[in-house]
Amino acid sequence: MNEANLNTVGDQMHQLITLLYPISRSITGNGVRETLEILKRYISLSIYEVPSGTEAFDWTVPKEWNIRDGYIKNAHGDKIIDYKNSNLHVLQYSGPVHKKVQLAELKEHIYTSPEHPDWIPYRTSYYKEAWGFCMPHNQLISLEEGEYEVFIDSTLENGLLTYAESFIQGELSDEVLIFTHICHPSLCNDNLSGISLCVYLIRNMMQQKCRYSYRFVFAPATIGSIVWLAKNESNVRKIKHGLVCTLVGDTSNFTYKQSRQQNAEIDQIVEYVLQSKPHKIIDFSPYGYDERQFCSPGFNLPVGCLSRATFGKYPEYHTSADNLELVKASALQESLEVFQEVIHVLEANKKFINQNPKGEAMLGKRGLYNTVGANSQNIDFQIALLWIMNASDGSQSLLDIARKANMKFDYIKNAADQLLGCGLLKETA
Amino acid sequence: MNEANLNTVGDQMHQLITLLYPISRSITGNGVRETLEILKRYISLSIYEVPSGTEAFDWTVPKEWNIRDGYIKNAHGDKIIDYKNSNLHVLQYSGPVHKKVQLAELKEHIYTSPEHPDWIPYRTSYYKEAWGFCMPHNQLISLEEGEYEVFIDSTLENGLLTYAESFIQGELSDEVLIFTHICHPSLCNDNLSGISLCVYLIRNMMQQKCRYSYRFVFAPATIGSIVWLAKNESNVRKIKHGLVCTLVGDTSNFTYKQSRQQNAEIDQIVEYVLQSKPHKIIDFSPYGYDERQFCSPGFNLPVGCLSRATFGKYPEYHTSADNLELVKASALQESLEVFQEVIHVLEANKKFINQNPKGEAMLGKRGLYNTVGANSQNIDFQIALLWIMNASDGSQSLLDIARKANMKFDYIKNAADQLLGCGLLKETA
Amino acid sequence: MNEANLNTVGDQMHQLITLLYPISRSITGNGVRETLEILKRYISLSIYEVPSGTEAFDWTVPKEWNIRDGYIKNAHGDKIIDYKNSNLHVLQYSGPVHKKVQLAELKEHIYTSPEHPDWIPYRTSYYKEAWGFCMPHNQLISLEEGEYEVFIDSTLENGLLTYAESFIQGELSDEVLIFTHICHPSLCNDNLSGISLCVYLIRNMMQQKCRYSYRFVFAPATIGSIVWLAKNESNVRKIKHGLVCTLVGDTSNFTYKQSRQQNAEIDQIVEYVLQSKPHKIIDFSPYGYDERQFCSPGFNLPVGCLSRATFGKYPEYHTSADNLELVKASALQESLEVFQEVIHVLEANKKFINQNPKGEAMLGKRGLYNTVGANSQNIDFQIALLWIMNASDGSQSLLDIARKANMKFDYIKNAADQLLGCGLLKETA
Repeated sequence: MNEANLNTVGDQMHQLITLLYPISRSITGNGVRETLEILKRYISLSIYEVPSGTEAFDWTVPKEWNIRDGYIKNAHGDKIIDYKNSNLHVLQYSGPVHKKVQLAELKEHIYTSPEHPDWIPYRTSYYKEAWGFCMPHNQLISLEEGEYEVFIDSTLENGLLTYAESFIQGELSDEVLIFTHICHPSLCNDNLSGISLCVYLIRNMMQQKCRYSYRFVFAPATIGSIVWLAKNESNVRKIKHGLVCTLVGDTSNFTYKQSRQQNAEIDQIVEYVLQSKPHKIIDFSPYGYDERQFCSPGFNLPVGCLSRATFGKYPEYHTSADNLELVKASALQESLEVFQEVIHVLEANKKFINQNPKGEAMLGKRGLYNTVGANSQNIDFQIALLWIMNASDGSQSLLDIARKANMKFDYIKNAADQLLGCGLLKETA
Repeated sequence: MNEANLNTVGDQMHQLITLLYPISRSITGNGVRETLEILKRYISLSIYEVPSGTEAFDWTVPKEWNIRDGYIKNAHGDKIIDYKNSNLHVLQYSGPVHKKVQLAELKEHIYTSPEHPDWIPYRTSYYKEAWGFCMPHNQLISLEEGEYEVFIDSTLENGLLTYAESFIQGELSDEVLIFTHICHPSLCNDNLSGISLCVYLIRNMMQQKCRYSYRFVFAPATIGSIVWLAKNESNVRKIKHGLVCTLVGDTSNFTYKQSRQQNAEIDQIVEYVLQSKPHKIIDFSPYGYDERQFCSPGFNLPVGCLSRATFGKYPEYHTSADNLELVKASALQESLEVFQEVIHVLEANKKFINQNPKGEAMLGKRGLYNTVGANSQNIDFQIALLWIMNASDGSQSLLDIARKANMKFDYIKNAADQLLGCGLLKETA
Repeated sequence: MNEANLNTVGDQMHQLITLLYPISRSITGNGVRETLEILKRYISLSIYEVPSGTEAFDWTVPKEWNIRDGYIKNAHGDKIIDYKNSNLHVLQYSGPVHKKVQLAELKEHIYTSPEHPDWIPYRTSYYKEAWGFCMPHNQLISLEEGEYEVFIDSTLENGLLTYAESFIQGELSDEVLIFTHICHPSLCNDNLSGISLCVYLIRNMMQQKCRYSYRFVFAPATIGSIVWLAKNESNVRKIKHGLVCTLVGDTSNFTYKQSRQQNAEIDQIVEYVLQSKPHKIIDFSPYGYDERQFCSPGFNLPVGCLSRATFGKYPEYHTSADNLELVKASALQESLEVFQEVIHVLEANKKFINQNPKGEAMLGKRGLYNTVGANSQNIDFQIALLWIMNASDGSQSLLDIARKANMKFDYIKNAADQLLGCGLLKETA
């Protein structure tokens, strides 16, 4: 990437991904700390650490895992795979090992992806002690009989689980939660793209005044959101809307997975914003990313998942091919714009009560009525005014009205602002 | 029209339109009074007058407008347009004027319809003082440079706004409201057709005994319905069903615009009655005719708009081409029949409670069951009886049952009458 | 049928039909008693008799009808029809007669089916005294002028109406009602097929432990279900689900007629079970079989009608062609399997409450999670577990969850059993 391109936000987002790419993250450990320290150069961030063994609902915070090196040497002493080339080569949470094994035994500890025989798969064993390596399937089948030296220099010890929050105080104590997972090592779309998008979204929002308060959570997947929910259980009722942000750097069409509530305001808004682009809406299901936890029946929060590719459904998913080439500056930037537009609509999507509910208000005396002739522009604006006044009985939001009137949200919002200015509308309590 | 044709009600309806066509109506003034006086020859009518300056919700009754003459003369002294040829030639609510102007200035006071260059458009300026003329666009572009004499002999003074009611007392104090606007000058479909239909509908209903009470309101559009609502606010809760009646003389298919409630009983009934004809149903929207006022959120009355052409969507709308040729006797008569059928169903659309709700009633001992053989006519009748008894738990009307049974309303009503006669049904309270 | 084929349940069901076929049943009388005595060889059965004249809601139990003989002889003394050849030849509830009549008078007492001129129709006159015969239409039109001797040796006297119950006590006092009519003489599909299916269903269920209690009612149509409801009115509230069982021996696709409730659990379950076969679902209507009585508005029980052919819509309906050839062993057996599957799902279709509702349960520590690699079989199972835990807030049954997850009921049930075993689910009260 040359410097000239860095003019675009998308390029900057890609550059941050490039910076974070080599770091060896997992659900715990120094890679997460190092990642969050870099993010602190961009945004204000509060970092939290929770000790191994802490209980969180049905779960327990695992030991902290750190890894320094790992390789397999063949009988000639050649390193046939080397952790230093790709941190995907070592099974995540692999314990230390150093011994010589025959090929047959080695194979029991090798993970490959036969469907994509040239890619290294990403595999984990967080909650069961194991050691292992990941490699391209073509390499596995070319291995010759003989003795191999396996070496993993890792530690699995009582330590800490690390996550971070960035909080933007709005006028309301009602919160919007945006969650992004930070536990994957050298995988770009899943989820350096989500991390980078959140960073640039926060930078953008810091410059605005917000109605809602916004809480961005950077945490490991599953255990991270569960720990966060357990520690913040008493504040969860403040969350009025939420999104999980992930897979936002590839060039697929957008995907929106609805919240468990299915027709929550956030669902309606994301669906409205995506209308102008090719996209798909998928029903809530209890597998995927951390919306699983926020949408568990004991919380049932209105949290959807907004991505480009669909969870588990793109070929490069959880392989070494989810790399810096897969994510594009233009795609990242478009994704950022979609999140910004969602927030724009969310901020403005109020409900009003018509202060002159009996008969129409007389627009003419307020300068809002075209007195004699008519041009179609003006007629549309008057129709927008009429829709807002007719529908504003306190039960319908501006987005509801925009959909009924078949007009753009911003057009309706602009008309509502004029009626507000005249005192014809009052925001619902 | 020769006398022989006057045998049909449609011809009589058209003749009344012909009689009213030349009168120069507006939202106030002598043209309205003259129109209502003619209607009093046909039906019983109570006339109400409300002084200029009276407040009605957000509105104020305007000054009364009367006009006696108006013309434009060219430099040769020829009247190039003359109010006496068409009352559309003068902008409604135009103030008086008499002066000489150059073409450039004149053009600022001329309204035309370039899409229909041979027709005079209908334009108004009720709430902003102005003077002006309307003419065919082709005439406008043929005007030569030079001096023109403009003359309008009108008055705009404190006076009265005039409307009328015709009330038919039924068994119930529950009311059906039928509203038709009377403010348009020489325009036939919009709305001499609606006025004529209401007159003949009232004449027809005076001969019947009605369950509901019917209130027909003849008033100017917008300000008239708003004034009526303001003066009758305490009685509005009596209105159980309502229709705005307009555009019923052209030969288009029928259009029904739903009430704001969308699935009110009147909506269901009109949709049922129109099923047998080509027609379209359109969603409620807050622009159109006076249903806007009845369906404002502070009232939200079940009032739809039943017409043939659609508001604003026929070429002759608000032009001199909405004339005596556009409205046809046969179309007027068919429209009258549709309104009569709607009222017929409304009157009969009761809910009943089966007095023998446990198991079927034994039809045989009441002479309602075909004992041995069966002809299909008779089987249908028994099925109708069974449907009514099964569905009559007090929650479903005869129309609901007719739709479930996929039978005609009158067939179900006839069967219900037989069950009523046997004491097997009782009307809900 | 040779003995070898009797290995299948379908063959046994057909054999029972063959045994019952010749018996002269009606809504009362010895034919019903004889039929029920035969069924007692197969299943435990309680027989009830209700005297003529007993009132049951709007109905009165009629006189008991018995018939011994009947014929028509022509002028030559030849029996042109003979009750001993087919019990359909005599109008049901025909009074006794013995006289000579001319052809013209005879014809007033003959019933035929011109659409099917070679078949004897089945006709009744339960509630109006009459005498009559049924014959093929082709025979009727070939009758020559002259004198005929008509003879019916029947009695219509105060007696008893007979019906029976077979009850299977389950864990719950909540009951499932299965009703089958027993009043038709030599008609196989309508309804020896239903009788036979119920007998084999009961035999099968006697070997199982049931959650629900099951009440099978064998009774005459209409008057039988009405009498049963009248005598059991205080226990009707125990009935949580029900089916009318009839027309289950022909080779048509299955038909399910919904209960009046339309979306009762039994409706959902039958529709689920039929999904794997060509079938049709029809809306509730108040004509058909005894679901009419159970679904009368005073009871409104969740009782549908599960059949193959549709009531009144197969050519052989109520004719001599509804015979032993029309019903097939394979069709009977498939129908039995469908009823068994419906009961299987009904028994298992519980609602649960997730005992770990906040965040997901940790499946790994319970041995339910595939730790490293993944085969797709196992992934499906984990998805099933996740669906059940996410949806089990007490409002959704396992069938609801199976439909949401787009998985088979048994697959979901099996997964739920594993979660129950771990204590992660608790059945709703």
